[in-house]
Amino acid sequence: MSSVALALDFGGTKVEAALVSADGVVIPGTRFRRPSGGSSDSATLQRAVLDVVREAHAALAPEHELLGVGIGSAGPITLAEGLVSPLNVPAWRDFALRDLVQRELPDVPVTLQMDGICITLAEHWVGAAQGYDNVMGMIVSTGVGGGLVLGGRTVAGPTGNAGHIGHIEAGGFDDACPCGGRGCLEAVASGPRTVAWARTQGFTGSTGEELAAAHRAGDPVAIAAIERSGRAIGQVVASATSLVDLEIVAIGGGFSHSSPRLFEAAREAVAERREFGFVTKVKIVPSGLSHDGPLIGAGALVHRADRVGG
Amino acid sequence: MSSVALALDFGGTKVEAALVSADGVVIPGTRFRRPSGGSSDSATLQRAVLDVVREAHAALAPEHELLGVGIGSAGPITLAEGLVSPLNVPAWRDFALRDLVQRELPDVPVTLQMDGICITLAEHWVGAAQGYDNVMGMIVSTGVGGGLVLGGRTVAGPTGNAGHIGHIEAGGFDDACPCGGRGCLEAVASGPRTVAWARTQGFTGSTGEELAAAHRAGDPVAIAAIERSGRAIGQVVASATSLVDLEIVAIGGGFSHSSPRLFEAAREAVAERREFGFVTKVKIVPSGLSHDGPLIGAGALVHRADRVGG
Repeated sequence: MSSVALALDFGGTKVEAALVSADGVVIPGTRFRRPSGGSSDSATLQRAVLDVVREAHAALAPEHELLGVGIGSAGPITLAEGLVSPLNVPAWRDFALRDLVQRELPDVPVTLQMDGICITLAEHWVGAAQGYDNVMGMIVSTGVGGGLVLGGRTVAGPTGNAGHIGHIEAGGFDDACPCGGRGCLEAVASGPRTVAWARTQGFTGSTGEELAAAHRAGDPVAIAAIERSGRAIGQVVASATSLVDLEIVAIGGGFSHSSPRLFEAAREAVAERREFGFVTKVKIVPSGLSHDGPLIGAGALVHRADRVGG
Repeated sequence: MSSVALALDFGGTKVEAALVSADGVVIPGTRFRRPSGGSSDSATLQRAVLDVVREAHAALAPEHELLGVGIGSAGPITLAEGLVSPLNVPAWRDFALRDLVQRELPDVPVTLQMDGICITLAEHWVGAAQGYDNVMGMIVSTGVGGGLVLGGRTVAGPTGNAGHIGHIEAGGFDDACPCGGRGCLEAVASGPRTVAWARTQGFTGSTGEELAAAHRAGDPVAIAAIERSGRAIGQVVASATSLVDLEIVAIGGGFSHSSPRLFEAAREAVAERREFGFVTKVKIVPSGLSHDGPLIGAGALVHRADRVGG
């Protein structure tokens, strides 16, 4: 018999489930997907979740022993009760996602955490942060999210929402954020916000891919836009390291691939904190995960349960 | 017999030692002090430390059982080797403070942590954060420092420098910081920096006490200065809560007493993060510690060793 986890990843645009092996691999042929998203009602979302859970469960082979279900969800969440309120999914506010899945599979334990925590656990397990016990995982995409592993264990916090790196402010920026704050990293450095800033400077494209292409072509506005966002990322990494003494930050997500310059600008901003070796020591590296990362991380809630902290 | 800790607090202007009881009280008549500070050479600083340690040790009564020594030091520190490099004490860079004390008292365990961590442990033990397990302690004085208790245990980080809340940036501020960064909380909201900003607006005093007096008298520049610093404190508390899901922040230090308006402005800034209940839930309260707080916290490293994390 080989031990497997059923992993579920619920995000703002899609929900996916798959079987994840004990060595951190999505088992081929077991991955299923449905759209989720802003315009769906709760019944449609629930059906999408149950569809992919049933499909992944039906993919169990005779040699598989199902240890449990791990769920990563877009936040905010309420950890103790297993409720989710994804910012971009208005139909779900305090929705009992964990109980929905538990009723479907009553015989195995079901664990739910914020998706950013799952991704960080995956980086720590099989990604770019292997060998480090003080890690921040980050996703820079349509939003900016993340999670923490401190002292070798995930930090969820009393409500389960620790790791909201997109809502740490960056000095000198005051862009309005949907959370109600100003100067939050997500309001500066997400793909859409970076494009929006570039457009104020004359850029005529409308997507992160177009901005990346313009950057490759040497367009000075695209270069300035990516440097601005990279710099904000670095400032916030420096702030987070001041607070929790990180060793390494692994950054993934669609917009993180726009240019290596994004990473260089982030590292330059960290290096300015020259008086504090404990800050400048932090490494900023690209994610070591494939596009399976979120599912591997949800599976890690089961396979690496000893690394899941309070 | 009653169990006592020998507590040592090493700061930028003074070094103190005292005996601390198992219920978190500085035993009367056991507290001793010497100046430290920027102009002293290393030999003078070492003598000052040994003087107060010997004096406190000589104050042990026949009924006292000495469990160990707890040291809180201004940071940065290097936890594993027990080295200190206090920013305002240039004579000590990677100075082996823990070993100095261990040689003096070879028969008991000696523990060293950053002073902000000690203060937070004291707030958690006998101060304003009793009953909460996700706490930030803060000192707002000539500098801004702090520490974290997460999940009921202190977080030191791999180098021992977690809790440097003064070097989280505040959105919209870009004041130059001695650490090399810009917009760090310490560069905005410390007592001296608040006074310096007020002077750019026409304030003619030169101390935090004068600024507090002007505020009480209704001076609009003093009011604006204290609101500006309180707002920056609140912004950084919101950022820190986004990252580690704090329940309560206890703020002490000389400048924190300048006006209740400082706390109100901080709370107003947190409340603006209206979409995130896990952020707006954080309480901001005055420290519950007397001026014995740093020593009680150093003593807590011994008496509350089960609460001291990695």
